[in-house]
Amino acid sequence: MLVTFVGGEAGPWSIIRNDPIRGDGLAAAQRLVVEENGEPQRGVWTLRGSVSNERYVNSREQVGLRERSPSLGRREATSAALIPIRKSEDWWMLPQDVRRAIFEERSRHIATGLEYVPAVARRLHHGRDLAEPFDFLTWFEYAPRDANAFEELIGRLRETEEWTYVVREVDLRLERDG
Amino acid sequence: MLVTFVGGEAGPWSIIRNDPIRGDGLAAAQRLVVEENGEPQRGVWTLRGSVSNERYVNSREQVGLRERSPSLGRREATSAALIPIRKSEDWWMLPQDVRRAIFEERSRHIATGLEYVPAVARRLHHGRDLAEPFDFLTWFEYAPRDANAFEELIGRLRETEEWTYVVREVDLRLERDG
Repeated sequence: MLVTFVGGEAGPWSIIRNDPIRGDGLAAAQRLVVEENGEPQRGVWTLRGSVSNERYVNSREQVGLRERSPSLGRREATSAALIPIRKSEDWWMLPQDVRRAIFEERSRHIATGLEYVPAVARRLHHGRDLAEPFDFLTWFEYAPRDANAFEELIGRLRETEEWTYVVREVDLRLERDG
Repeated sequence: MLVTFVGGEAGPWSIIRNDPIRGDGLAAAQRLVVEENGEPQRGVWTLRGSVSNERYVNSREQVGLRERSPSLGRREATSAALIPIRKSEDWWMLPQDVRRAIFEERSRHIATGLEYVPAVARRLHHGRDLAEPFDFLTWFEYAPRDANAFEELIGRLRETEEWTYVVREVDLRLERDG
């Protein structure tokens, strides 16, 4: 499934923050549409990614994620974040076992994320094979009461060894009417 | 890098075999062009894939592959094969460790391929995240004197557990003037 995130003047989500974290940011936009296999829409910017197979999750982790991960679109989840990142060519040249070791054994990406479900729903979109400017677009949804937990999650991930390979990152926060 | 394989009436490669191995085949075409980041060309069919990062290769295997893999375009490599495959949804739902175990520990995909370098040059193109009809397009180049070795390689791979997950496969063979 190919998903398109269109920042512009239309859409159910209001963009309330748009911060460049590393490298170039994204142009200012008021609202966001998330299009699933829809017609491309025009906006100030358009980011695309595919919902694809897992690249690092092992059997045990997959069971935990499937049992506990909430779906998108929960009525109370009126807060969202869109975090586009690109990793360095050094990262992509590493063999699978080394990337896995950095990603999970040393950075605890999956284990840390599991601490924040079911509060935070998450969907990952892959853009690298589409020649997009970002390798990953991660979309998060949560209730306003879980905003502090979400900030903690993002802060912990940004301190990991994995994140030293991130060469571009933007942090967008969004709200919709409940 | 996005690569487009265009089957039609033009191109340096003559298509000398076009066999459906599993599922639907591809329409008859006389010649093939391999376009690297070029303008899309019109043909009887067009297949696209991205040259992407490795998904299963570990550190030791990566060293072996890098030391011994020949490049494409060798003067003597006037024979080629294009083998598009699609794997089942069951495959794609498996966690990474299970896919790796089937792919290499049980099917010896990487180890078997390494037995046929430097005779056979190979480049893998990923189509699944592009919503292409095939998940993989593998392109092989070899000298006519290595044709038997190539047949052996393909035959061995098709007998593996990994291949039980292949739901569509076409086998195209090609020649160009030396």
